[in-house]
Amino acid sequence: MKSDVQIAQEHTLEPITRIADRAGIPSDALIPFGTTKAKVDITKLDWDRPNGKLVLVTGVSPTPAGEGKSTTLIGLTDALSMLGNKAVVALREPSQGPVMGIKGGAAGGGYSQIVPMEDINLHFTGDFHAITAANNTLAALIDNHIQQGNELRIDPRQITWQRCLDVNDRALRNVVIGLRGKANGIPREDGFTITAASEIMAILCLATDLADLKRRLGAITIGYSFDGAAINADQIGASGALTALLKDALNPNLVQTLGGTPAFVHGGPFANIAHGCNSLLATGAALKYGDIVLTEAGFGSDLGGEKFFDIKARFGGLDVAGAVVTATIRSIKYNAGVKKDKLTEENVEVLELGVANLARHVENIRKFGVNPVIALNLFATDTDAERAWMKQWAEDFGVQLAEAEVWAKGGEGALELAQVVLDSLVEGESTPLYDPAEGVRASIETIAREVYRAGEVNFSWNAEKDLQQILENGWDQYPVCISKTQYSFSDNAGELGAPTGHTLHVRKLIPRTGAGFIVALTGDVMTMPGLPKRPSAENIDVDEDGRISGLF
Amino acid sequence: MKSDVQIAQEHTLEPITRIADRAGIPSDALIPFGTTKAKVDITKLDWDRPNGKLVLVTGVSPTPAGEGKSTTLIGLTDALSMLGNKAVVALREPSQGPVMGIKGGAAGGGYSQIVPMEDINLHFTGDFHAITAANNTLAALIDNHIQQGNELRIDPRQITWQRCLDVNDRALRNVVIGLRGKANGIPREDGFTITAASEIMAILCLATDLADLKRRLGAITIGYSFDGAAINADQIGASGALTALLKDALNPNLVQTLGGTPAFVHGGPFANIAHGCNSLLATGAALKYGDIVLTEAGFGSDLGGEKFFDIKARFGGLDVAGAVVTATIRSIKYNAGVKKDKLTEENVEVLELGVANLARHVENIRKFGVNPVIALNLFATDTDAERAWMKQWAEDFGVQLAEAEVWAKGGEGALELAQVVLDSLVEGESTPLYDPAEGVRASIETIAREVYRAGEVNFSWNAEKDLQQILENGWDQYPVCISKTQYSFSDNAGELGAPTGHTLHVRKLIPRTGAGFIVALTGDVMTMPGLPKRPSAENIDVDEDGRISGLF
Repeated sequence: MKSDVQIAQEHTLEPITRIADRAGIPSDALIPFGTTKAKVDITKLDWDRPNGKLVLVTGVSPTPAGEGKSTTLIGLTDALSMLGNKAVVALREPSQGPVMGIKGGAAGGGYSQIVPMEDINLHFTGDFHAITAANNTLAALIDNHIQQGNELRIDPRQITWQRCLDVNDRALRNVVIGLRGKANGIPREDGFTITAASEIMAILCLATDLADLKRRLGAITIGYSFDGAAINADQIGASGALTALLKDALNPNLVQTLGGTPAFVHGGPFANIAHGCNSLLATGAALKYGDIVLTEAGFGSDLGGEKFFDIKARFGGLDVAGAVVTATIRSIKYNAGVKKDKLTEENVEVLELGVANLARHVENIRKFGVNPVIALNLFATDTDAERAWMKQWAEDFGVQLAEAEVWAKGGEGALELAQVVLDSLVEGESTPLYDPAEGVRASIETIAREVYRAGEVNFSWNAEKDLQQILENGWDQYPVCISKTQYSFSDNAGELGAPTGHTLHVRKLIPRTGAGFIVALTGDVMTMPGLPKRPSAENIDVDEDGRISGLF
Repeated sequence: MKSDVQIAQEHTLEPITRIADRAGIPSDALIPFGTTKAKVDITKLDWDRPNGKLVLVTGVSPTPAGEGKSTTLIGLTDALSMLGNKAVVALREPSQGPVMGIKGGAAGGGYSQIVPMEDINLHFTGDFHAITAANNTLAALIDNHIQQGNELRIDPRQITWQRCLDVNDRALRNVVIGLRGKANGIPREDGFTITAASEIMAILCLATDLADLKRRLGAITIGYSFDGAAINADQIGASGALTALLKDALNPNLVQTLGGTPAFVHGGPFANIAHGCNSLLATGAALKYGDIVLTEAGFGSDLGGEKFFDIKARFGGLDVAGAVVTATIRSIKYNAGVKKDKLTEENVEVLELGVANLARHVENIRKFGVNPVIALNLFATDTDAERAWMKQWAEDFGVQLAEAEVWAKGGEGALELAQVVLDSLVEGESTPLYDPAEGVRASIETIAREVYRAGEVNFSWNAEKDLQQILENGWDQYPVCISKTQYSFSDNAGELGAPTGHTLHVRKLIPRTGAGFIVALTGDVMTMPGLPKRPSAENIDVDEDGRISGLF
């Protein structure tokens, strides 16, 4: 069987100019990066065009077997193109950290990929690097401000701005910096997050133009003074420099699917530790140049899904016409407690138990006023009996289900799904779940009750203190971005299926006043991943002609 | 007076395709980054063409007033173009750290700049970011190896591989990482260098092709085992992944001067803490497509100059046809001890004392078999009497001197200098200073005696131990890369002019077995700069149209 990278390398890409032409994107808006990638100058797009229809692709709670959410999205879009629709993809950019670790990229797989996949997975057009640079320039300016006299009286113990790198590096989670004397800074505790978790990533993904970007960057809360006053990046004098570092990164990237469908790939916040959606500008541009736009939100309805509606769609005024919940028969078994090495064995009986997870995701999406369909992403080991059971279940449950074979067949494998999706679209009814005006506590409680089905929410002593600070600073009416494990509806990764009545533990609240939301950390979600025992990096190689291997 | 960025922004750039055409670079070798920047695919260049003549531009010991070395190089090249020569520039890329700090970029100034200057100074084509990513991926792989069982028995106290960022951030010089328990790594001391000081920067600048790049990356010594055995990056399984991260960065970047001369701008090691020259591949490509190529080496003959001949030209088999030593009347006064605020007052008497610094640089360059000329970069405050004195001195000393006004006049201001340079060229006589076969100690002593004019070399107890380890590992015949202050020929920044008989203090030797040299740290040279009280970052801004201001 060919690997993803082999399939991608054997494909002949169209020039990106031709892809843009076909989408109607003005040629003077294209900023080429080689011949198959481009940035699109947002100031040269026609923002007065009518919007296409927006479809969200989400999935069941992820399992170690992989569900192929991005792969389904890409295959489905190619199928929509084949059926004569002007379809456009809007996806996140992969983070290099996981590429070197275990997860693989976010560029799809098999015959449903966005290409050039090696470039997209490594550096791409430099957006992550620009964010890393801006994040760490701000950090250096903060420590330098203290070093040079600390006019703002920044309390080194209360700096909330962390450094970041786009590397999976657990050794950087907790560090002490500024050691070895007067010339080398103030000794203090710090930590690195992965770039995908930087507030600047969220800002880039939510900014509507350059002026909005600058305003948001200046509004970043970097910490507190000895007197308890919140201090922002503008007070440090950083707004202009950070905007300069990010002005090119703000333009969405344009690439193509293996089927030749235009794909905007821009921004990459993780969905467990951030808001998990590609940039508003990319989705916005896609809606202007596509009649139907497929976009994803990381992990399930509880993570990227909820944040897609409550943060991204709210901020961007997006109307969502439809949704797809991606599931696999293996993931349903896994959610019933079947071990990873038994997932390929036929087991019809267990589906009844595991399908509760899928049902929960469908119900959750309906709460946002959208009518989801299920994409059952088929694997060779799925049996006829299992497939028949799934179809019957969907009929009984009252949800449309279509099978897809996107990895092996690309768009050809998703034609039925595409028709089901087209038939499901409804406009003008999508809505967020909660009203932020009711306050941060109420917003968290609503999400916990309605989406996670928690019995109660427990705020730690630290979180209560944070909430007090949020109230005092007038930040209580920001939406919330809950950082939670992706493996369970609860904050306990081991609780598979569709748990109810559990307690959500809010450990800490972090005001992200630049992004415009309050992050709530639950359970023990890490904002900096580690590498596994055998990192993918060990398998990656390059031959003398520059051809990369071992990248999935 | 217009700022550099204003002058650059008012200039209409030619499409990079036209610049490449004019140089004869095959169009299929161009990888565009927008319309005015490109990478050049090294595998598509014609390496069988004859070489042009190579001219090194260096300068006097730098002073706070600035000598305009890059500016002179750029103006001089434009003047050579005006005189009908097929001239090409080969320069280093600026580091973002100093751009946000104090120094300014390395893109020239006034009417002698390379453009687009904002892009070149910020991100450019992502080479520094790729190096940062590769450097820190290797670091993460090392700590992960220890965390996952430490098969190689790496001693955490003897890891020599540091992390890096392209930020001026003194607080990261000395850090403790891996804190807070078993899941978060092994607690150990670490430090961040600036990206320009990463061995991977040196490797990128010395690699001759992709295979050589991979071999060098694998040969990086990352530290020692508990048993004292040296461990390299290949043993960690990192060679392939690092090569994948750097394969695009290896291709030189092509831009243009304000005069429309092609400029290869690639690689950016600092000259005080690294070898200080742009990449061999950029210089090599320039020599294939230019009849006369001007390249620089950071700071004076003692730093970039010496390393240019002893490391870069030796490794690349380059023949150097000529050299230019850039000086200003202000720098000569400063080297005589005149304070910064008195440099603009006429003071002919003091020139006699200060010119010793310039004379020393001229003598040093002659030791490498090259016949240097002096470029006297004029400032408005230079008086007729001072200029006359300088000309008479040069005549008496037996060196060609030509005045230049490159900042204000661009190439027009360097026509006389260009003719003097053309007349000075000699081929086939340049040579390194020492024979590495005589060992690291002898090499350092030769440089100290011949170039720094030190009376003796003192190896600290640590340096003696390092030397022992170098001998034991068979690394004693690598060339040396001495890290020293740029402000003095000695290792004491306060000793201006042309000191002799001083003692060079070698504190530490670091084997850079990937780059292929031994770094000798002297004095207290920092490998991570800090920000000043008022960082340039505070002045940088972007308007709503994306126009950057405050960048010099």
